Amino acid sequence: MKLSKLVGIRYKENPADCIIDSHIFSIRGGYIKQVSNGIFSLYTPMKRVTSKIEGILREEMENVECQEVMFPVVLPGSLWEESGRYESVGDELLRFNDRSGTPMVLGMTHEEAAVNLARDFGRTYANYPFSIYQIQTKYRDEARPRAGLIRVREFTMKDAYSFHTSQEDLEKYYDKMANVYFRIFQRAGIPDVISVKSDSGMIGGSVSHEYMLLADCGEDSIVLCDDCGYSANMEAADTIVDNSGCSGMTELKKVSTPCCKTIEDVCKFLNSPVEESCKAVMYQINATDEYVIVFLRGDYEVNETKLTNYLGEKVHAAEVTPESGIVAGFCGPYNQNAKCRIIYDKSLEGIESLCAGANETDYHYTGLNIKRDIGDVEYIDVSKIQTGGICPCCGKKTIKISRGIEAGNIFQLGTKYTDSMEMTYTDEDGTSKTPIMGCYGIGVGRLAACVMEAHHDDKGPIWPISIAPWQVHLCCMRVDDEECKAEADRIYCELKKEGIEVIYDDRDVRAGAMFADADLLGVPVRVTVGPKALKEGEIELSTRDKSVNGRVKKEDIIKETKALIAKLFEDIDKTVSPLI
Amino acid sequence: MKLSKLVGIRYKENPADCIIDSHIFSIRGGYIKQVSNGIFSLYTPMKRVTSKIEGILREEMENVECQEVMFPVVLPGSLWEESGRYESVGDELLRFNDRSGTPMVLGMTHEEAAVNLARDFGRTYANYPFSIYQIQTKYRDEARPRAGLIRVREFTMKDAYSFHTSQEDLEKYYDKMANVYFRIFQRAGIPDVISVKSDSGMIGGSVSHEYMLLADCGEDSIVLCDDCGYSANMEAADTIVDNSGCSGMTELKKVSTPCCKTIEDVCKFLNSPVEESCKAVMYQINATDEYVIVFLRGDYEVNETKLTNYLGEKVHAAEVTPESGIVAGFCGPYNQNAKCRIIYDKSLEGIESLCAGANETDYHYTGLNIKRDIGDVEYIDVSKIQTGGICPCCGKKTIKISRGIEAGNIFQLGTKYTDSMEMTYTDEDGTSKTPIMGCYGIGVGRLAACVMEAHHDDKGPIWPISIAPWQVHLCCMRVDDEECKAEADRIYCELKKEGIEVIYDDRDVRAGAMFADADLLGVPVRVTVGPKALKEGEIELSTRDKSVNGRVKKEDIIKETKALIAKLFEDIDKTVSPLI
Repeated sequence: MKLSKLVGIRYKENPADCIIDSHIFSIRGGYIKQVSNGIFSLYTPMKRVTSKIEGILREEMENVECQEVMFPVVLPGSLWEESGRYESVGDELLRFNDRSGTPMVLGMTHEEAAVNLARDFGRTYANYPFSIYQIQTKYRDEARPRAGLIRVREFTMKDAYSFHTSQEDLEKYYDKMANVYFRIFQRAGIPDVISVKSDSGMIGGSVSHEYMLLADCGEDSIVLCDDCGYSANMEAADTIVDNSGCSGMTELKKVSTPCCKTIEDVCKFLNSPVEESCKAVMYQINATDEYVIVFLRGDYEVNETKLTNYLGEKVHAAEVTPESGIVAGFCGPYNQNAKCRIIYDKSLEGIESLCAGANETDYHYTGLNIKRDIGDVEYIDVSKIQTGGICPCCGKKTIKISRGIEAGNIFQLGTKYTDSMEMTYTDEDGTSKTPIMGCYGIGVGRLAACVMEAHHDDKGPIWPISIAPWQVHLCCMRVDDEECKAEADRIYCELKKEGIEVIYDDRDVRAGAMFADADLLGVPVRVTVGPKALKEGEIELSTRDKSVNGRVKKEDIIKETKALIAKLFEDIDKTVSPLI
Repeated sequence: MKLSKLVGIRYKENPADCIIDSHIFSIRGGYIKQVSNGIFSLYTPMKRVTSKIEGILREEMENVECQEVMFPVVLPGSLWEESGRYESVGDELLRFNDRSGTPMVLGMTHEEAAVNLARDFGRTYANYPFSIYQIQTKYRDEARPRAGLIRVREFTMKDAYSFHTSQEDLEKYYDKMANVYFRIFQRAGIPDVISVKSDSGMIGGSVSHEYMLLADCGEDSIVLCDDCGYSANMEAADTIVDNSGCSGMTELKKVSTPCCKTIEDVCKFLNSPVEESCKAVMYQINATDEYVIVFLRGDYEVNETKLTNYLGEKVHAAEVTPESGIVAGFCGPYNQNAKCRIIYDKSLEGIESLCAGANETDYHYTGLNIKRDIGDVEYIDVSKIQTGGICPCCGKKTIKISRGIEAGNIFQLGTKYTDSMEMTYTDEDGTSKTPIMGCYGIGVGRLAACVMEAHHDDKGPIWPISIAPWQVHLCCMRVDDEECKAEADRIYCELKKEGIEVIYDDRDVRAGAMFADADLLGVPVRVTVGPKALKEGEIELSTRDKSVNGRVKKEDIIKETKALIAKLFEDIDKTVSPLI
């Protein structure tokens, strides 16, 4: 198509309020337009990118014999009541009543709808395993949408659901899906995406993995061991703390610690190592407001997801009142009289002599030995793993923390939904059993943003040929030069005839503006028809990333362009894992 | 794919509560599953049909240089306030607040979103004309969803929006769009769809057309003249009444009409022709409850859309209270003292001597002459045109009323949205002007249902090859016969290798069950591998509609199947209008 007719505006300046590159270029390049907070319209270039991603998703789903279906966006609340999620999911589930007063929700994931659709077919063991997927709009009423298409309220998602009669069969299929997930990212041009063990969160289930694009702008923290290849997200990484080098047992002593506000202050004041201190972090359970005190080593932080998972309850930072009995700033495990739940983090295990709050303003204990002074306690892992920490897999002190963007996830759900929604099948032996589920998601728009994040320079995105909005960007440098215009027109027609996707800049604008727009559209192959080269019978042929940047004879331009496109596709194909 | 793995159940019996054939077969054939009233999940066969329809829509939109974009499903109420529709549209617009309390709506059409997206690009005359479309989920909170995919609450729609600098340019584009709309229906296998002049309703604008599939089960009434080809929907058809043959003027007389409940009773009792009677139909304006009395010829009916359009107000049937002053059953224009608005329908114009209510229980007037006894009144056309009535186009008494299903619509919107939303462009002469819009919709699921309605027998749908879920239905009649199974497997592999879409019934079921399922899936080409024919070296090749039903040599089956598919596509192509 002609660039002069492409609906959308491209901007020279960076937009306000955009921090990450993919967001900046999404706005500057005329890819998206914000309609409401976290809700976007897609202009044609982004729609073309997402359509190509959807094409890859469909092909890869076919590779694992997953059937395309379509669930509704608007779902009856009753379906979510069946699974228990109508109550359990927070405000991100948009609930409303229809005109007849019936409670409805906007689908944010479709486990319930999948069970609803598959229930009848799944009544007999003979029909298993099977899996279904859809590519559709979802809505999550996010409190803080951010970063363009990275964290939105409305988004298009490919979500697949598989049904099995045994855990073994689920695992076999899960591995196949993991394989095509890598293929999807490879085909979309981001082969560096890694899979990390993750916490299953509100979806449920035991085993799950996230596919992460490592990127400084990512909002997820990823735990990596370069030595053994271990990877997990923060919630899923076991924190192992080695306290073997600590001091031996000493006497319990109450000491004055005036004006010490933090555990660091106290340790400094007492000239005691922070590794042998015990700090307290206070929470309240959302449902009951009951206090929960977490005691952990002074240099560690609580991971609230681990804490929530252990408690089975959501929590918020405590508001410590005088009635609570908690002495804020001086809270410790010894002589603790507050009515509350107490959790000892694993980071404290093995320390013989602790400095800890004395539950009295301006006083701490030193020499506290939990076993001796308090008794046997259970140590729970609710803290965040740290850089340089011990790898839960190989045991070396090799842990690295990186930032990443979640580009997809897969879950072994078990029977969470089939149980609660009473989906059953008759097994070969005539008994009634509950099928086992898996689910597998990829956000289409977020994947596009991830690719932009991974492939750009300071002028705009550099789209991989497989998902580029067009394959060729054709520039006519002088529309007022008859020969130049005629040659560009000819190339446009011939490329289109060859089935090549061309965006043709036939505008009468300066070269600088023309190239700036081309850079923002990020089309991988560029054909530039200029009067100077044309005088010598040549056309410029280059790639957006400048790895190719030269001239070809004008009679060869179609052939050479096709060859270049084919080569770019081959380069992508080389990164793609074989099917298992 | 293999039918044994196709998620979904097919049923022998007609489901309860299904009246129309497409609904019956949609359920019986495992095409759709109701999730809530008027909200459906689509199983794979229907998803495949709708994907093919979407493919046709995309190609035809490209033929009119319409660019694909994507608008959100969830839109801010503020956008609809800009156009005034947040207030003016009724309960079918689903309104809710998001978690921050911001009013939001679920998009039922996207004129506002289109203006929002196009506003920046449309600031200069040089960028016009242009048009954009999307294929996306919409939600209308219908009070009475019905008939499967015909009238639903959630649906996928192709909606296009064009922007112009002159009415002439809009009309030129409108004609092009009308042309590709016919092509869409032709390519989908329903070339009989007609275009009718329609009322623009809540979308607004002046000129609009609906594309109608004539079908007895349709909920729309269509006015047709076989003589001159005139077509319109009821709301848009001018009612012309010829009262030239009526009696002359007579004396006004009050007569007793005891026990006469209807105008027919009165006419019979007085032995007076119903064509010379005046009946009253009472309404109340929704917003104010003000009474509106429509007087019209006894044998005509009020068209409430015409009435609403004339009043510029929505109305409901009146609740006649004693305080209203209206004497129900005896309401007439003479001596009418009720406080209300009075409308004289055009059907009364020219009648010299009317029988009408006397506004007194058990009394009517005869010989009422409106001009003589009441004075000059304005006659408004608010009645329904009738079978045998006068064609507004050729003037002959040729009007026929048919039932139809609306399969699409196109609107000349004028400046309704661009005005209210203050979209402007700078014209060549530097002045600021308001662009003119058109909009163009087709419901994807409804189109699928229309095709099913137009093409089925008593066993199931007969899909046109262009949108069939698969091209070939392959039946292996005896999976326990080694030769039969091997031959069917070979054909399956070879057809797939040729890029042909095959559904392969490899189940061990009776022939009756196998053919019943094949009929319900409605795949146009059927290849049946049975042991008897195979002994003679032959395979059965037939079409779902039985126009082809024979055997071919087994070595020719791939070639013959391909040829048959090609012929079915050619048959469709023959019905398709050339592009204008």
